[in-house]
Amino acid sequence: MSSAVPPFSARPHALYGLLACVRLTAFEQRAADAGRAASYEDKVVLAGLATGAFAQFELLRDRLIEAGADPYEAMRPYQDAISAFHERARPADAMEALTKVYVADSILADLYREAVEKADPGTRAVVHESLADSGHAEILTERLRAAAENDARLASRLGLWARRLVGEALSQAHALAEQNPEVGALFGEEGVAAMFGRIVDRHQARMRAVVLRD
Amino acid sequence: MSSAVPPFSARPHALYGLLACVRLTAFEQRAADAGRAASYEDKVVLAGLATGAFAQFELLRDRLIEAGADPYEAMRPYQDAISAFHERARPADAMEALTKVYVADSILADLYREAVEKADPGTRAVVHESLADSGHAEILTERLRAAAENDARLASRLGLWARRLVGEALSQAHALAEQNPEVGALFGEEGVAAMFGRIVDRHQARMRAVVLRD
Repeated sequence: MSSAVPPFSARPHALYGLLACVRLTAFEQRAADAGRAASYEDKVVLAGLATGAFAQFELLRDRLIEAGADPYEAMRPYQDAISAFHERARPADAMEALTKVYVADSILADLYREAVEKADPGTRAVVHESLADSGHAEILTERLRAAAENDARLASRLGLWARRLVGEALSQAHALAEQNPEVGALFGEEGVAAMFGRIVDRHQARMRAVVLRD
Repeated sequence: MSSAVPPFSARPHALYGLLACVRLTAFEQRAADAGRAASYEDKVVLAGLATGAFAQFELLRDRLIEAGADPYEAMRPYQDAISAFHERARPADAMEALTKVYVADSILADLYREAVEKADPGTRAVVHESLADSGHAEILTERLRAAAENDARLASRLGLWARRLVGEALSQAHALAEQNPEVGALFGEEGVAAMFGRIVDRHQARMRAVVLRD
């Protein structure tokens, strides 16, 4: 690697800070979506997804504290780009909120998992755990599939929404890499684009799984 | 008991429905307070309290499902009274939100624990678990004590706010008992008033623990 920036694995607290910020913000968004959900079922699924994100935040925060870092300081450089993503990708209702978790979270998880493939096993384990399904993926997939199968108009709207989310998720990653050299180094010299093909392939498979066109 | 209403312990799903509603609503309120919190520290404490409430909701919901009840239907009779409480007791900032958890949750927990003292051991265990500290009480007490010790004006404002919360919590219990015969039966013939003295004693001890005047 010709970059002067040391690889992320040498400074895991920067990566943990980024992911802690991703997870705490996900908690806030999902909890707010749960608060707005019109149906009891959607409210409970979104609240469960929120608590899952918070548990992952706690894991990362505890690793940061163990490493002697201040969690808040470690998260701060990434807050603007992550908040901007959520500002631009505001779900109009609970089904869009569920689609957002399903689509955008999976893309970001794929990106970060690819990015730490060459990191040390300890860092890799923490990152994988912080991106893992918190036990709500199955019910999420079921809800989306059932909705798409029963309502062609809803399926079409969610398909468009998902396409927008792909763009927003990838542009969040681009913005983070541009504004933070250590994130840029994480994605390597070719940047986010190098991973693009593989990540879009996986996204398309996920869309087919819930009967949404991508 | 001269009431024609069977005691709550004979129909634990009604009690579980009430407490599930209390807990899911607490999740929503705390999560919304976390979203509004200005400081990282308060945000994380409130988010932790929210996830604790959701875990307790899940416990009650699972007991309801095991008992063959529809959790949503079991919660529904109590939603209006509980939402009305939160409407009337809207914290202005994170310190008021933390005080609300500390004061109102403890009073309601005391009430329901007293109410199930004569229930069967299984019901009592579920109720106690659903009302237990989710591991955040210590940090909550510390935050309030530190704030009250360092800022006399804030301590005075929180003291007034706590007094209002006592009234609102007790009137929530009264409203629930009046509108729902099974809750009235839970509190016995003398009603909420019979427990009032003991509950206010414990409230005053908690206020002293955080250096707030009651």
